[in-house]
Amino acid sequence: MAEQIHFDQITIIGAGLIGSSIARAVQRGQLADRLVLADESIEVCTEAQRLKLADACMTDAASAVEGADLVVLAVPVGAMASVGAAIAPSLKAGAIVTDVGSVKESVFKSLSPLLPAHAHLIPGHPVAGTERSGPAAGFASLFDSRWCILTPPDDVDAAALERLSAFWTALGSKVEIMTAPHHDLVLAITSHVPHLIAYNIVGTASDLETVTRSEVIKYSAGGFRDFTRIAASDPTMWRDVFLNNKDAVLEMLGRFSEDLTALQRAIRWGDGDQLFDLFTRTRDIRRRIIDAGQDEAEPDFGRTHKG
Amino acid sequence: MAEQIHFDQITIIGAGLIGSSIARAVQRGQLADRLVLADESIEVCTEAQRLKLADACMTDAASAVEGADLVVLAVPVGAMASVGAAIAPSLKAGAIVTDVGSVKESVFKSLSPLLPAHAHLIPGHPVAGTERSGPAAGFASLFDSRWCILTPPDDVDAAALERLSAFWTALGSKVEIMTAPHHDLVLAITSHVPHLIAYNIVGTASDLETVTRSEVIKYSAGGFRDFTRIAASDPTMWRDVFLNNKDAVLEMLGRFSEDLTALQRAIRWGDGDQLFDLFTRTRDIRRRIIDAGQDEAEPDFGRTHKG
Repeated sequence: MAEQIHFDQITIIGAGLIGSSIARAVQRGQLADRLVLADESIEVCTEAQRLKLADACMTDAASAVEGADLVVLAVPVGAMASVGAAIAPSLKAGAIVTDVGSVKESVFKSLSPLLPAHAHLIPGHPVAGTERSGPAAGFASLFDSRWCILTPPDDVDAAALERLSAFWTALGSKVEIMTAPHHDLVLAITSHVPHLIAYNIVGTASDLETVTRSEVIKYSAGGFRDFTRIAASDPTMWRDVFLNNKDAVLEMLGRFSEDLTALQRAIRWGDGDQLFDLFTRTRDIRRRIIDAGQDEAEPDFGRTHKG
Repeated sequence: MAEQIHFDQITIIGAGLIGSSIARAVQRGQLADRLVLADESIEVCTEAQRLKLADACMTDAASAVEGADLVVLAVPVGAMASVGAAIAPSLKAGAIVTDVGSVKESVFKSLSPLLPAHAHLIPGHPVAGTERSGPAAGFASLFDSRWCILTPPDDVDAAALERLSAFWTALGSKVEIMTAPHHDLVLAITSHVPHLIAYNIVGTASDLETVTRSEVIKYSAGGFRDFTRIAASDPTMWRDVFLNNKDAVLEMLGRFSEDLTALQRAIRWGDGDQLFDLFTRTRDIRRRIIDAGQDEAEPDFGRTHKG
């Protein structure tokens, strides 16, 4: 068995769903002598302290990173630059700085010029989450069996990359390394466009004049309710994702719309074979996701049907 | 407490997910002296018999309806007419004939001219299901707390409608009555278009040349996996839905695409406020669905996160 990864001090900036889940998983794995949380909101800090998520929780990010050998930025993508500027002067030599943002190229471009040469910037993205927000929503097992993607720069310090990989492995994740542009393309189709079309259909359904909102809610078990879950995700986080992964999202959205237009035409012209062929093909992907351990095997996501 | 509804003989045509769930719920509630299942597939009949889903299971629908005072057609919408023609000569006087199809106007139009005047045709649609198919996939609690929509004709026999409503209530459902065209519009947005866009994005993701299918599967927890569940639904059933609810689906799809184009433009031009406003608005619908008991309150659909 590999030697347990350990840090003198881990500092997490941002005590929301992801940041607080990392804190809990760090405590679960006893991965640091000292764990410090920072959040600009005094309410969030108070809540984090009440939940005993860290040895200390403070509103000043610069003070929080003092002495840290690992700094994790768990703030919306649009807030990375201001946080980076704030902590840069306080980072100790050799500190690893990573993040959990859902977009990687723009995060690297905005953080990289701000940080001192003696810190190791290695962007990362744990592909995990729920539709909830805030420190109370986190839990230690969030990253178990999920993938964490790291997008190190070409000149990455090999030892730092190894330590960061070991950190995520200790949190329960499987680690994959790829370039930032490829990450942004992959996540555009596996996460960003799915969120956008979920938000969109919930918006469309809310605005109808021929079907009431109460009807939409009553009959949502016909399929609609599945979309409302991810359409309940954090608005700030997702606004920033779309603004910062524009090219890849627009590319994937273009393909989605093109394919949807073809389906629309098949429906208009009564081409049942085209519909049947697609609907048969898509079944296989579900099976493969379950085989890969990336979703529940039980029907209906294991909903209890207790009534 | 209302007197328990009871039938001498209930016959269900089609022993798939819905038909077999009705059979189980009829047994659970002891709603019939005799329960008969029919399915054109000998394999399905054998499986239904092994599962003890009914007193008898036969491949001949006409024989199966003999003596029935309630006949439930649980076959794909496209098969309703041929089943209707087959059973018409064997229906006893006063028999109630209903169905569970996801489209109501076309079902009524195709069945109505085929059935004898001495039978009462009242189309219905339980808004419930999972992505699984076949007799082994059914379960008795599938309809508990879900809505069943009945779309009786203007000249419906009041006593027959009352008996059918009491039947669905005894299966655990809440019953709503509306016109067939309104049903088809409501379900287009709450069920049919959601299924179409789920099928579509799974198709788009499978066909990419820049992102491998294995990457799509590995990182599906970013949101994509939610869509694969309903995209694993029965291909025949869903082909028939789209072919038989063309006008309403095309109308709702047009609105969806229009709204999506507006979001696409907001992303291209960096209009974060427009995105943020929508993403905030959609959160409320999720909360209302949970408050209405139409989905699990637990985050992530109550997925276990056991890893």
